[in-house]
Amino acid sequence: MNSILKKVKSPDDLKKLKDYELTILADEIRKVLIDTVSENGGHLSPNLGVVELTIAMHKVFNSPKDQFVWDVGHQVYTHKLITGRQDDFCKLRMEDGLSGFPNPNESEHDIFFQGHSSASISSAFGLSMAKKLLNDPNYTVAVIGDGALTGGLAFEGLNNAGRSKNAKLIIILNDNDMSISKNVGSIAKYLAAIRTKPQYYAIKSNIEDSVMNIPKGGEMLYEKISKAKKALKNYMYESTLFEYMGFRYLGPIDGHDISAVCDALEGAKSLECPVLLHVKTIKGKGYDFAEKLPTQFHGTPKFDIETGEPISGANSFSSKFGKYLCKHAEDDKRICAITAAMSFGTGLETFKENYKPRFFDVGLAEEHAVTFASGLAKNGMLPVFAVYSTFLQRCYDQLVHDAALQNQKLVLAIDRAGFVGDDGETHQGILDVAFLNSIPGIRVYSPSSFNELEMNLNRALYEDPGVVAVRYPRGNEGEFPVDYKCVDEPFTMYGDEGAKNVIVTYGRLFSEAIKAMEKLQKKGINVKILKLNRVKPIDINAVKSVLNDESIFFFEEGVRSGGAGESFALKLLENGFKGQYKLRAVEDKFVESASMPTLLKKYKFDSEGMVDLIAGSTKT
Amino acid sequence: MNSILKKVKSPDDLKKLKDYELTILADEIRKVLIDTVSENGGHLSPNLGVVELTIAMHKVFNSPKDQFVWDVGHQVYTHKLITGRQDDFCKLRMEDGLSGFPNPNESEHDIFFQGHSSASISSAFGLSMAKKLLNDPNYTVAVIGDGALTGGLAFEGLNNAGRSKNAKLIIILNDNDMSISKNVGSIAKYLAAIRTKPQYYAIKSNIEDSVMNIPKGGEMLYEKISKAKKALKNYMYESTLFEYMGFRYLGPIDGHDISAVCDALEGAKSLECPVLLHVKTIKGKGYDFAEKLPTQFHGTPKFDIETGEPISGANSFSSKFGKYLCKHAEDDKRICAITAAMSFGTGLETFKENYKPRFFDVGLAEEHAVTFASGLAKNGMLPVFAVYSTFLQRCYDQLVHDAALQNQKLVLAIDRAGFVGDDGETHQGILDVAFLNSIPGIRVYSPSSFNELEMNLNRALYEDPGVVAVRYPRGNEGEFPVDYKCVDEPFTMYGDEGAKNVIVTYGRLFSEAIKAMEKLQKKGINVKILKLNRVKPIDINAVKSVLNDESIFFFEEGVRSGGAGESFALKLLENGFKGQYKLRAVEDKFVESASMPTLLKKYKFDSEGMVDLIAGSTKT
Repeated sequence: MNSILKKVKSPDDLKKLKDYELTILADEIRKVLIDTVSENGGHLSPNLGVVELTIAMHKVFNSPKDQFVWDVGHQVYTHKLITGRQDDFCKLRMEDGLSGFPNPNESEHDIFFQGHSSASISSAFGLSMAKKLLNDPNYTVAVIGDGALTGGLAFEGLNNAGRSKNAKLIIILNDNDMSISKNVGSIAKYLAAIRTKPQYYAIKSNIEDSVMNIPKGGEMLYEKISKAKKALKNYMYESTLFEYMGFRYLGPIDGHDISAVCDALEGAKSLECPVLLHVKTIKGKGYDFAEKLPTQFHGTPKFDIETGEPISGANSFSSKFGKYLCKHAEDDKRICAITAAMSFGTGLETFKENYKPRFFDVGLAEEHAVTFASGLAKNGMLPVFAVYSTFLQRCYDQLVHDAALQNQKLVLAIDRAGFVGDDGETHQGILDVAFLNSIPGIRVYSPSSFNELEMNLNRALYEDPGVVAVRYPRGNEGEFPVDYKCVDEPFTMYGDEGAKNVIVTYGRLFSEAIKAMEKLQKKGINVKILKLNRVKPIDINAVKSVLNDESIFFFEEGVRSGGAGESFALKLLENGFKGQYKLRAVEDKFVESASMPTLLKKYKFDSEGMVDLIAGSTKT
Repeated sequence: MNSILKKVKSPDDLKKLKDYELTILADEIRKVLIDTVSENGGHLSPNLGVVELTIAMHKVFNSPKDQFVWDVGHQVYTHKLITGRQDDFCKLRMEDGLSGFPNPNESEHDIFFQGHSSASISSAFGLSMAKKLLNDPNYTVAVIGDGALTGGLAFEGLNNAGRSKNAKLIIILNDNDMSISKNVGSIAKYLAAIRTKPQYYAIKSNIEDSVMNIPKGGEMLYEKISKAKKALKNYMYESTLFEYMGFRYLGPIDGHDISAVCDALEGAKSLECPVLLHVKTIKGKGYDFAEKLPTQFHGTPKFDIETGEPISGANSFSSKFGKYLCKHAEDDKRICAITAAMSFGTGLETFKENYKPRFFDVGLAEEHAVTFASGLAKNGMLPVFAVYSTFLQRCYDQLVHDAALQNQKLVLAIDRAGFVGDDGETHQGILDVAFLNSIPGIRVYSPSSFNELEMNLNRALYEDPGVVAVRYPRGNEGEFPVDYKCVDEPFTMYGDEGAKNVIVTYGRLFSEAIKAMEKLQKKGINVKILKLNRVKPIDINAVKSVLNDESIFFFEEGVRSGGAGESFALKLLENGFKGQYKLRAVEDKFVESASMPTLLKKYKFDSEGMVDLIAGSTKT
C-alpha cells in the first residue's frame, strides 16, 4: 500500500528513487488522487494529467531554491504529496485541511497563492529577474496549460520575458488540448498542428535521441555538456510561434514518460535563455471516466469511483440560469451567450447545444469576452456574459471602458457571488458588489431565490438600460416561508411592518435573516426584514422606509469597504437617520477556504450570528 | 488655403477626388494637425503617422456602414476632418469642442468611445459577428498600433477572431516601431525583422505589382476578381506569427503611399476571411521635431511650431515623483521602477537613464506589470509601478490576486488621479479610490502637495506593509498658506478647532477647501478642515475627531458610490454621529472632457461651490 509514496517525505527522498520506482510512485499517486477526490471533491482531470510531469520536475530541480509557479494552480495535488503533505492530503479542500491550490502558508514549496489563470509567466519572470539582479543562480519554472495560454496576461508575459537574456526561466507548456472545456481559438489550432504534423514527430524522435545522451551527475563533463547543447540547438530549435516570442522551443515531449521529461528538463537547464518546453499530456490520465469526460471531472463534487457518477445533483442557480436563458433565446434571436471557457460551470451547456451560432466560448479571456460582447451589442445583438464573480474582476477595465462608458446593453450573469466555500482564497466572490459599485451606470441585482433570478434576468434583458448584472450564489436556493412573495421591485419588506428593528440584507443571507427573525420573535424582539433586490443603485425609497426605525442591522456577504452597506449608511445619514446602524460585512481581509456552513457561521452571517448581534444591541 | 480639404465635407466628397488631389489633401490635413495641436495641445505624432492611411480607408470603405474601430483612439484627427468635423476642429480638446478621441456623440462615423489600448480587435470582432448573424454584408476594420498589440487583450482578440470563417474583418496593423515610448518585447522585435529582411521587401514588391492590377469600380468582373484573389494568395500569403493566429497576412505596405494602401485594402476586401494588413508608418511624419522626438510629441501641450518647444513647463506631481524615487533608488538597490510604456508621462525618464537594470518598461501591459512586480517583490526587490489612474483599472484582478492576496510589498504610484481634464471620457481618474477601496489590505494615500507626496512615498516604501498606493493629481500642486504644516499622519486638522462645521476632503481639493474656509469666515461661518492623508483605510481617530460637530461636508473628487465619502459616513453612523452630513462627489456618471478649472467649477468642487453648499446648509 503506497510503499514508495510513503518513503517520499520530501523532494530529496524522491531524488533517491530508481527509475522503475518513479513509475510505481506515479501509479500510487494516481490512486491517492482518485480516492481522495472521489471523497472530497476537487480538480481531478488536471491533476491526473501532470503526475509524471510533477515527479520529473522534482527529480530535476531543487525546490524551493528552484521555484515552481503553477498556472491556475488547480494541478498541484502531486506536488503537495511530494513536498511533505501526504498525511494531510485526506483533508484536501476541507476545513483546516489542505487547500486545493498552492498556498504559501502550507509550504515553502508553494510560492504564491494561485487560482486565476494565465499569471504564471509574468510571476515567474518577476522571480527570475529578481534572481538575476541578486546573482541567485537558481531556476524559475512556470507550468501553464494550453487553456491558460489563451489569456492575454500569458501573452503579455511571453512578450516581455522572451526578450530577457540569460534568464534562467523555463516555461513548461502542459498541452492537453483542453482549456477547462475543450480549448478554442487559433493557438489551440496551432498547437494541434504541432502535435499532429509528421515532421514534428520526426523532430521529437531526434530530440529524444539527443537528450537521452546527455550525461548526468558526476559523469557530466564540460565537453559533453557542450555537445548536448549543440545537439539541442541542432535538433530542438524549431521555428514556431514561441520562437517568434523570443523563447527557445523544445518539444513536444510525451508528458507521461518520466525519463523523457527529465531528460528534456535537463536539456532546458543547459540552455541559458528563456525556454519553452512543450509537454503533451492527457487530461484525466489513468481514470477512464475522467479521460472520457475531462470537462466534467475538471472540477468535480464527490463521486462514485466505480460508476463515475457525481454524488450531489441538487438544483443550482447555475442550472436554473441556463434554463431561463434558453427560454428567452428560443423566442429572441438577438440573445447571445458568452463564456470564458466555463460553459459547464455556468450552466450554458444546453444553450451551447441548442443555439450554437449564438454561443461563444472565447477561451480563458474575460477581458475579450466583455469587449467582444460590446461589439455584438453595438450592432443589435443582446449578449449575456456568464462568469464567476471572482473571474469577473479580470475585466474591470473593459466593464468600465468598453461597456458602461459606451452605454451598451449587456447582461452579466455572475455566478458564485459571495462565499465560494472550498475553492478558497483565490476564488473570492466577495468583491463584486463593491467593484461594480464604483462603475457609473451599472445596475446590480442580487436574487435570493430561483424565482427572483428569473425575474431579475427578465428585467436585465428587457427593462433596464445599459449594463445590468445579476449576481447569485453557488449552489441551491435557501428556504422561504410560504407567505413570502417574490416581487419584481428594487426592494421588499418582509415581516411585521410595525417593528422598529430592521434587518437589511440581500442575496443568500435573506433566508438566514428569516430564520433569525423567527428566533428573535421568540425572544420578544420584533424585527422586520428589508431585502434589497437591487443593490446598485439602492432605491431611495428603501432607505426612506426605515428612516424612522430605531435600529438597523445590515448583513452583507461581501467586503465592507466600498460595498452596499456603506452606500446604505450614506443615504441614511444624508436623510437624517438618527437611530442605531450596524453593518456586519467581511472586514478588510480575504476569506479562507472552508465549507459554506462554516463560513456563514464563522463570519456570523448565519441566523445565530444575526440573533446574537441584534439581541445584544436592542431593548427587549 | 486648404482648397481641397474644404471641399471634403464627408467621405463621399473624398471619394470623388483624383489621386493627385488626395496627395494634396494629405499635405493640407497635416498642416491643420500641426497648427491645431500647437495651439490646443493633443496627440501629434500618432496623427501625423496615419494621414494617408485614413484617407485610403475612407476612399476604399463606406463609413459608417463599414465600421472603423480605432485602437487607443488618439489617432482619429484626420478621420474627424474627413467626416464633417472641420469647422469644429479648431476647438479640438476644448470645452464644448471636439474630443481628442472617437466619440459617438459627435458623429455616426465614431463607433465607440475609445481611449484605452488593445481593445479594437475584440470590439471589431464583436461588430463583425453581429453583422454575420444579421446577414449584413459590410466590413469591419480595426486599426491597431504595434504598441497596442503588446496588450494581452489584443492577443485574446486575435486568438478568438482568427478562427472565425467568412468574417469580413480587417485588422490594420499600424506599425511605426513605437508604443507610446519605443516599443519593447518580442513582438516588436519580430515586426522589426519582417520590416527589414530583404525577402520581405521582395514579397512586398510582388504584392504591389499584383494588387495594382486589381480592377476597380464598374470594370470589375468576376474573372478578374478571381484572378486578383489568386494573385493575392500566391504572393501575399506569407507564413508568419499572424498566420499562426488564423489571419491572412498582407504586407508590409508603405503607409504613406495612398494608392498602395488603397490597393492593399481592396485586396483585403476580396479575401473573405479575417485579414491582417501590415502597414508601415512613421510616427510624427511631416513635422521634423515630431519625427525626431515621437515620444515627446506623442501627447504634447501647446508648443511653438518653429522651435518645437512646449509652452508650459511648470512643476508637476509626475516630475517630483520621478525625482523622489531616484533619490531612494540611489541608496536602495532593491528599488525597481515599472512602467507600461509611459516612462515619459509618469516621470520615470531619469530613473530609466540612471538605473537601467532596475527599470522595466513592460509594454502596454498593465496586468503583466503588476504580476511581474509581485514576482520581483517575492524574491526581495522593492517594485514601484507608476501608472495613470485610468490605466490602473486594467489590472484590478492582478492587484487582488497577484498582489494583495499574496501580501506582497508593492508600491503603486498613481498619476492623473481625479479629474484628467482634456483627455476626457475615456481617461477617468475618478474611480481609483473606489475600486481600491474594495481590495482587502491595500492602503491608499492622497497627497495634496509635493511635500506630502514625498512623505507618502517614503511611508509606502518603508513603513507600511503590503500593497500601498500613492495617488496624485495631474499637474502642479495647489497653493497653501504659510501656517499649514504637512504631517506624516493619516489625517490633519486645519483651521479653528472649535468650529462646529467641518469640511472633509483629500488630495487636490484641499487647497480649494482652504480658500472656501477663508471665504466662509468672511461670511461669519466658522469652518475647520479635516484633511485625509490616507483615504483607505480611514483612520478611526479622524472620524472621532469630528463626531461631536454639527455639520460635516465631505468633498470627494471621485465617484460617490464605493468611495471614501461613503466609508466615512458609515464610520460616523456606527459611532453615533447625530449631526448633518453632506457628501459632494461625482454622481453615477462619467465625467466629460473639459479644462480642469471648468470641471472643478461644474462639479462644484471649487471654493465657490464649496461655499455655496456650506453657506446654504449652516446657521450663521
